[in-house]
Amino acid sequence: MRKISFTDLRLGLIATLVGASITMIAIPAAAQQPMEPTAIERAKILAEPGVFGVFTMFKLRPDWDKAPAAEREGAAAELTKLIEEHKNNVLVDVYLTRGLKTQYDYFFRVHAYELDKAQTFMRAFRATTLGRHSDVAETQVGITKALNYITKDMSPGLNSGLSSATYTGPAPRYVVSVPIKKDAAWWNMSIDERLALMEEHTAPTLAYLVNVKRKLYHSTGIDDIDFITYFETDDLKAFQNLMISLASVGENKHHVRWGDPTTLGTIHTPEKVVQALAE
Amino acid sequence: MRKISFTDLRLGLIATLVGASITMIAIPAAAQQPMEPTAIERAKILAEPGVFGVFTMFKLRPDWDKAPAAEREGAAAELTKLIEEHKNNVLVDVYLTRGLKTQYDYFFRVHAYELDKAQTFMRAFRATTLGRHSDVAETQVGITKALNYITKDMSPGLNSGLSSATYTGPAPRYVVSVPIKKDAAWWNMSIDERLALMEEHTAPTLAYLVNVKRKLYHSTGIDDIDFITYFETDDLKAFQNLMISLASVGENKHHVRWGDPTTLGTIHTPEKVVQALAE
Amino acid sequence: MRKISFTDLRLGLIATLVGASITMIAIPAAAQQPMEPTAIERAKILAEPGVFGVFTMFKLRPDWDKAPAAEREGAAAELTKLIEEHKNNVLVDVYLTRGLKTQYDYFFRVHAYELDKAQTFMRAFRATTLGRHSDVAETQVGITKALNYITKDMSPGLNSGLSSATYTGPAPRYVVSVPIKKDAAWWNMSIDERLALMEEHTAPTLAYLVNVKRKLYHSTGIDDIDFITYFETDDLKAFQNLMISLASVGENKHHVRWGDPTTLGTIHTPEKVVQALAE
Amino acid sequence: MRKISFTDLRLGLIATLVGASITMIAIPAAAQQPMEPTAIERAKILAEPGVFGVFTMFKLRPDWDKAPAAEREGAAAELTKLIEEHKNNVLVDVYLTRGLKTQYDYFFRVHAYELDKAQTFMRAFRATTLGRHSDVAETQVGITKALNYITKDMSPGLNSGLSSATYTGPAPRYVVSVPIKKDAAWWNMSIDERLALMEEHTAPTLAYLVNVKRKLYHSTGIDDIDFITYFETDDLKAFQNLMISLASVGENKHHVRWGDPTTLGTIHTPEKVVQALAE
Amino acid sequence: MRKISFTDLRLGLIATLVGASITMIAIPAAAQQPMEPTAIERAKILAEPGVFGVFTMFKLRPDWDKAPAAEREGAAAELTKLIEEHKNNVLVDVYLTRGLKTQYDYFFRVHAYELDKAQTFMRAFRATTLGRHSDVAETQVGITKALNYITKDMSPGLNSGLSSATYTGPAPRYVVSVPIKKDAAWWNMSIDERLALMEEHTAPTLAYLVNVKRKLYHSTGIDDIDFITYFETDDLKAFQNLMISLASVGENKHHVRWGDPTTLGTIHTPEKVVQALAE
Repeated sequence: MRKISFTDLRLGLIATLVGASITMIAIPAAAQQPMEPTAIERAKILAEPGVFGVFTMFKLRPDWDKAPAAEREGAAAELTKLIEEHKNNVLVDVYLTRGLKTQYDYFFRVHAYELDKAQTFMRAFRATTLGRHSDVAETQVGITKALNYITKDMSPGLNSGLSSATYTGPAPRYVVSVPIKKDAAWWNMSIDERLALMEEHTAPTLAYLVNVKRKLYHSTGIDDIDFITYFETDDLKAFQNLMISLASVGENKHHVRWGDPTTLGTIHTPEKVVQALAE
Repeated sequence: MRKISFTDLRLGLIATLVGASITMIAIPAAAQQPMEPTAIERAKILAEPGVFGVFTMFKLRPDWDKAPAAEREGAAAELTKLIEEHKNNVLVDVYLTRGLKTQYDYFFRVHAYELDKAQTFMRAFRATTLGRHSDVAETQVGITKALNYITKDMSPGLNSGLSSATYTGPAPRYVVSVPIKKDAAWWNMSIDERLALMEEHTAPTLAYLVNVKRKLYHSTGIDDIDFITYFETDDLKAFQNLMISLASVGENKHHVRWGDPTTLGTIHTPEKVVQALAE
Repeated sequence: MRKISFTDLRLGLIATLVGASITMIAIPAAAQQPMEPTAIERAKILAEPGVFGVFTMFKLRPDWDKAPAAEREGAAAELTKLIEEHKNNVLVDVYLTRGLKTQYDYFFRVHAYELDKAQTFMRAFRATTLGRHSDVAETQVGITKALNYITKDMSPGLNSGLSSATYTGPAPRYVVSVPIKKDAAWWNMSIDERLALMEEHTAPTLAYLVNVKRKLYHSTGIDDIDFITYFETDDLKAFQNLMISLASVGENKHHVRWGDPTTLGTIHTPEKVVQALAE
Repeated sequence: MRKISFTDLRLGLIATLVGASITMIAIPAAAQQPMEPTAIERAKILAEPGVFGVFTMFKLRPDWDKAPAAEREGAAAELTKLIEEHKNNVLVDVYLTRGLKTQYDYFFRVHAYELDKAQTFMRAFRATTLGRHSDVAETQVGITKALNYITKDMSPGLNSGLSSATYTGPAPRYVVSVPIKKDAAWWNMSIDERLALMEEHTAPTLAYLVNVKRKLYHSTGIDDIDFITYFETDDLKAFQNLMISLASVGENKHHVRWGDPTTLGTIHTPEKVVQALAE
Repeated sequence: MRKISFTDLRLGLIATLVGASITMIAIPAAAQQPMEPTAIERAKILAEPGVFGVFTMFKLRPDWDKAPAAEREGAAAELTKLIEEHKNNVLVDVYLTRGLKTQYDYFFRVHAYELDKAQTFMRAFRATTLGRHSDVAETQVGITKALNYITKDMSPGLNSGLSSATYTGPAPRYVVSVPIKKDAAWWNMSIDERLALMEEHTAPTLAYLVNVKRKLYHSTGIDDIDFITYFETDDLKAFQNLMISLASVGENKHHVRWGDPTTLGTIHTPEKVVQALAE
């Protein structure tokens, strides 16, 4: 079960390993120094590697229902104003989960080039009317990266497949986020073994490029998960079939956690989400 | 343990897999586009594939007991009115679990052709008297589908067995819902292997067609379970024997979760459920 | 690991399985139709198969301590009256666990020939003074059955051993209930394999017939456990040795859950339990 | 994996097993009937087998901070008085965990010859000022027994080692309690196999007799654990090394639960504990 | 699977084991008796072995938002004063996690030569304005020790690698703490086997000496974890790559728990943390 022979290790391979790891770090460090813009551009930050994503799920407390109507109704404008004030630091999306999830009523997805900026925004939100009536039910933090496996070099066929189609459906009504944790056996595989499994994973997903949008965040070490997978779709039945495909490949045997919680919600402007909760 | 050979995958099978998955998606996509009716018909929506089912379990808060009697007594009429207002969008069933379950007192089963319509109804319910005194304890979401395994083509004998008998008992007094999650080994089996296990699973259930009604919802990817199995019966002892039969077949070895929670309740009109809770 | 050969199943065994299961259901269905009496007789309902047992554990809320003394003191009489009103429908036992268990202060064991009658009683209890100050911490539901394995036919020696001695100790002061869930391998064994393990399980218990009373409830499918095992004793040290014996046999390797929670309490009349909590 | 051959069992061994178990029970039953004294003597009850130990962990509720200072300050005297009133029935120790544990602020260790006496004391405590402001966070119940494995007969060398040294350090400032649950494989081993593992377990502990005091309670069947291990020390670093020794032997492979919770606290008189919490 | 032969053990090895363990304890006992200083020096206590570290995570209760502004604003000065009063007994760091973690808003890391001094400080904090509005969400206790494996004697190459570079980045903005629990197989390995795995673990970390600071606490037996690993960095992307390296070695297969919770926060003075929470 162990990949290294103890004797080999003791007999001089240490220096090699040390050297290798120094080289290894050099590459991602270079690749991950994004230029921090003075104003956040939606299309840009959503496409770049090296961006932090903070997912925060909230549940309204019973006292929200007892708050004066004016206070509840003012909450939407208050959130809009807060988002405007922080627009140079964070990109903010809000989703409605009330009625579809047990543990939370709405959730934020916040993007930032520096994680402490996202923290500052979320902290400020906690001081708003809505924030003061809400409990945090879940927080997930990740970083965007360039593709790890299905690159032009390592898997040219699938890499080209990934750019052969784009989303053509109606504006997505639904959002799904699924945290993932892999087992130690996964991380102990060689890159070639993981590449083969990721190719098996990727192949059936190509057919869904037209009706499901996806985004990936890497979380190992900065959270208790390895990945956050994020989806938008208008066709939940197609999405459900996509997920069955992903359950049916060898990679799934390495999932210690896949979901738990799976978050299913609907997509609206932040104002609409707050208004729906204030009704 | 892995079903694919890494080398094979790398040597050109990728294109085939891509093609296969495009074909695969084409079929269910076509089969799952229901006609959305202007008014929900009970018999029709309960029989059709492509219908969303939302199960929501609620627990009354202690403050419910302290609410004025008039307010509590008005809650039944308020719910009836809400169901009437949403009758073009959702079919609503309510069940009584107080006295039989720890975590919740009553639960909703809501059917809709579009999931956001079910969300809107459940959100509106949260603003009613009963909703404002309740905490959500559990939410499960699934989609109905045509039979996957025991079809006329794949398993003609059992398929004909399934239509050889129907429920002949008294109007069912009891409802049981059981969420199911299967392991990665299950999803990684070939369709023939799963068919054989589902035949072993189905055979002993035929004898219970006369005293247990069943319905199945598919949840992979839109919830943290794979299936919601729903039962109605007037004979809990027969039902209990049915469940022992289902525990005693090979498929059960692939259950990561079977129940947890098993929900056992009694069947009444929505008004009766609310009245029982208001006493 | 699978007990059936897929090919065999496909080649015509299905009809046989269907037939077998129809026969199977016929037997317990007949054996389980008790005559419903107009008044519940304690000795009779505790001895019969086909009886529902509902275990409900309650924890007092902090506001109980703040309730007026008169209200607290009246709670015992109120419960006595409620039990009297429902005496044709349910047999009610109440036990004191405060001081011995973390999650609950007292618990009910309710027997009924029809489960909805037990639900109605427990619902009515929730409206009493004590019920309104309590939270449900645990509910377990089961059905009594005739012996499954250690019958006169299948295991005559042990069957006769079971009737060779009865409880001879003082009136039991202590009650213990232990829910059990078995693994899929257990349910997939042949009846002979399970019989052999149950014989190994039963043999060391005979010595404790004189100082530990037992009762078994079957829960598969109507709850998230397979069995509720219930004990009364005045000699907890003998009971503890009995439980070590049961841990030391092969059957224990098939316990997914054994306890969790083990409930340990003392036996009193319902009035005494409420008075002890009202002090 | 199974220790018995099914055929053997069926062919006449049953009578033997029955006889053996009757003999088995006779021995511990005799060994465990302590003389109940009219007044509890600390040194005696802490040394005897057949004594019940009840561990109860409490967390103060936020309203404790808001209680009038006089009420908080009177709580220490109230507890002292209660302990005095029950001194013929129970021996009471109280420990301070606030600042070292998340889930509780203080805990009781109560010894009694009859478990219902311990329950009565703990119930009475719940009615005191401190008890009414506290939530129970954990309860563990066990019984003391004579040594099971490292006896003069079975393991004379280690048995003599156990009495070759006693605690010589300063009065212990620290208390640690660790509940243990063993797996089914452990309980299914022969006594010789378990003895060998317990000898491996005991050997490295001898060196710590001088700086760590220990006591063992047996809980199988009366709680959801098998043992409560209790330690007092003034040298937490030595204690930590002892625990690493115990982690490093084969017995540790049979721990389903070891800790969870590990309770670490400081040792004071009951008065001092309450005063510290009242500050 | 067992490391010892039962027969060998019984035939005389016991005396040897006893002797060996007495020697074993002698060494760490000597190495771990630090001189207790009259005033805590930050650089010294952070570098020494035999120092206790107490990590305590807190969540503000909803009533904090409703406290008078003056009270909230005074909390920072109150904490500063408390830290000053205890400066001879403890070294106190406070970190801000609100916005990044679900379960807590801020956490303390307290160092002390005697654990009861840390307890006294944390108890005193609970009586402050901030403490009275907070719930403890997590407590972890550990002890610092000299290197166990990568010593000059056992692994000279890597030991020299560890001192070949130091942190050269900007003042760290981020803190991460990760509790670890290892499995019984880990603790049952020989020292050589563990050394080999720790060398494989250490090699890839050398490259990150320049941008990630680390500190290790040992917790076996005094908490339900084996280690607390503590990191400071200004480069979370480098840190995330470091953690992927640590996931990808054989040692990771022995982690029963790695994180759960992973704590991610930002580094500020205690005053700043309280002010940020009081806004």
